[in-house]
Amino acid sequence: MKAALKALEPPLPPPLEAAESSALALPGLPAGVDLLGRLESITAGRGLTRLAGRLHELAEFVAGDQAAFEAAFGALPRDPRLVGRTARHLLDLGGKRLRPMCVQLAARLGSSSAEVVIDLGVAVELVHSATLLHDDVVDLGESRRGAPTARRVYGNAASIFAGDWLLIEALRRVQRCRLPGLMEELLDTIEEMIFAESIQLENRGSVRLSRDDYFRVVEGKTASVFRWAMSAGARAAGLDEPCRRALETYGLHLGVAFQAVDDLLDLTGDEARTGKALFTDLREGKMTYPVILGLERDPALLPLVESIIDAGDGAPSAALCARLIRALRDADAMRDCLALARQRAAHATRSLEALPPGRARRALATVAEAIVDRDL
Amino acid sequence: MKAALKALEPPLPPPLEAAESSALALPGLPAGVDLLGRLESITAGRGLTRLAGRLHELAEFVAGDQAAFEAAFGALPRDPRLVGRTARHLLDLGGKRLRPMCVQLAARLGSSSAEVVIDLGVAVELVHSATLLHDDVVDLGESRRGAPTARRVYGNAASIFAGDWLLIEALRRVQRCRLPGLMEELLDTIEEMIFAESIQLENRGSVRLSRDDYFRVVEGKTASVFRWAMSAGARAAGLDEPCRRALETYGLHLGVAFQAVDDLLDLTGDEARTGKALFTDLREGKMTYPVILGLERDPALLPLVESIIDAGDGAPSAALCARLIRALRDADAMRDCLALARQRAAHATRSLEALPPGRARRALATVAEAIVDRDL
Repeated sequence: MKAALKALEPPLPPPLEAAESSALALPGLPAGVDLLGRLESITAGRGLTRLAGRLHELAEFVAGDQAAFEAAFGALPRDPRLVGRTARHLLDLGGKRLRPMCVQLAARLGSSSAEVVIDLGVAVELVHSATLLHDDVVDLGESRRGAPTARRVYGNAASIFAGDWLLIEALRRVQRCRLPGLMEELLDTIEEMIFAESIQLENRGSVRLSRDDYFRVVEGKTASVFRWAMSAGARAAGLDEPCRRALETYGLHLGVAFQAVDDLLDLTGDEARTGKALFTDLREGKMTYPVILGLERDPALLPLVESIIDAGDGAPSAALCARLIRALRDADAMRDCLALARQRAAHATRSLEALPPGRARRALATVAEAIVDRDL
Repeated sequence: MKAALKALEPPLPPPLEAAESSALALPGLPAGVDLLGRLESITAGRGLTRLAGRLHELAEFVAGDQAAFEAAFGALPRDPRLVGRTARHLLDLGGKRLRPMCVQLAARLGSSSAEVVIDLGVAVELVHSATLLHDDVVDLGESRRGAPTARRVYGNAASIFAGDWLLIEALRRVQRCRLPGLMEELLDTIEEMIFAESIQLENRGSVRLSRDDYFRVVEGKTASVFRWAMSAGARAAGLDEPCRRALETYGLHLGVAFQAVDDLLDLTGDEARTGKALFTDLREGKMTYPVILGLERDPALLPLVESIIDAGDGAPSAALCARLIRALRDADAMRDCLALARQRAAHATRSLEALPPGRARRALATVAEAIVDRDL
């Protein structure tokens, strides 16, 4: 193949043959990740019997919605052309389905059409998938969900177009639901995501990212989609504006809590569960909350953080990583990141007070309480 | 800067400082290209006085709409963040504004709101701009509109997000026009474009692209947007379905004619007018119509075509290029590519017969007749 035509592809490693990719999937990660089952088992293992029981109840409550979602998501067109195969590579790796669950639970607070809830759940998961495809190109991501990224298998160019395609597929579903205001809100949300990506990109490799900028990025890039998912469910259920606003607040806080846990998993998670290598964020030059806290409290950590960023594609040595983890623990940065997650989860739960009590509200409270304990 | 963080950037040439970029703009290309004025001067120079006169009339007819478009397009948000600056780099280089003119002329066939015509004109130009940003990343484009591409100035990653952003800005405008069916049609059109890109990508560097695949790519990637622009104007003007269909047929043929001329300009155009280097398509591994015809008629050209593709980033030698041009002329490939453009332009004009006669219809016929003579 001609050198010039391949130039957008990363220099290392070479794109894989499609056939190689499934062989590289980590055995621990099934296509569909059972988030609720996993949370139930973690909380039960910690003796949090009441919470484990509520998770069990939650799983039963959403089982029908989740099955309907999986059937619809699995039935997305399997286009044999390059862009179709590239998108399919990511979609077939499953996911936690937390964003569709937000749509489903919000919709349970009122009365809604099953088709609309399915369409909106699929839409939010597609928006999320589209951003993953583009992010992996931008970040030169190597693995995701326990498998090589789509860009490693099919190339950067195909991943760019595949991301474009999934976004269009998402918008199509939102459009056909014809819920007043919802399309505008999604376009605003995607714009927020793009500008959060822009801030992150401009600060890539900079150890001086402020806490304010961190929250700007997290709210724009992660939490805004959770907020939209809640709004979509609320609109589907015909809830009034105060209820919808309360759910949006819930989504925003839940999203920040979710990201704070992601930050911790990047440093101390189990790669076989998270599906990606440890220290990925830092090696991609992205400051996470514990690292920002650690550097604020102990500026002498700067050279250590920089040397891990400098490692880039090559994995930083285990000794360097262990030193940073120890230092962040000493600075209480890990503890306070977890505290941030718990605090935002509590804010999320508090915002539910404006809503009518019942199974759906209790289910949302359970999600907020348990999400902090996730390890995948 | 860290090596890993830069890895998505092309190995050669290095991204420019933003300040350098304006200095690199070719002096011949003003921000706004006066397409109609240029066509008038070309046709007058060839003694086609009647057509030149009709172009003059056309320019007067659309002057108000064009000024309103430029005012709105120039007033798009100037966001100081990286993604905003990246998008602005492309937008500030102007363009032929042919797609907005399609909206404007179709809208003149009925009665429409000025705001809606402006919004839809801006939308179609934004969709086009979004695809250029992504295409330049995929093709490692070096120059566009007489200046370095946005990806060379601001990088590939910023160009990906900037393309995403402009697409969202386009959709927002279409959404606020609230014309039934138009958003769905745009989403379908963008999907067509993506799959045409996919076919092109899969065939990159392959000299065996069939004529059928060529038309599939051209109709999906170029002509579909012209078709949508005509439909948008028709819907804005409240035209009935037969009229709208006729205009869509016009747009589709006009788009193919436009691309056939582009194919010729890639081989024999004036770089100072087209704003990009000669043989760009071929060096990017893209088969154009004259090359496909030439290879069909004279398979012995294969090694010559391949050696130009192999030149890739490095410009192929002037001698090689001259040999190919000569061979394509000998095989009548240039002549027949121009004939294709004229034939499609004639189809476009014929489809106008279904429409009420008047200035707008005559204006559209003038566009189709003259577009074949463009040199920019």
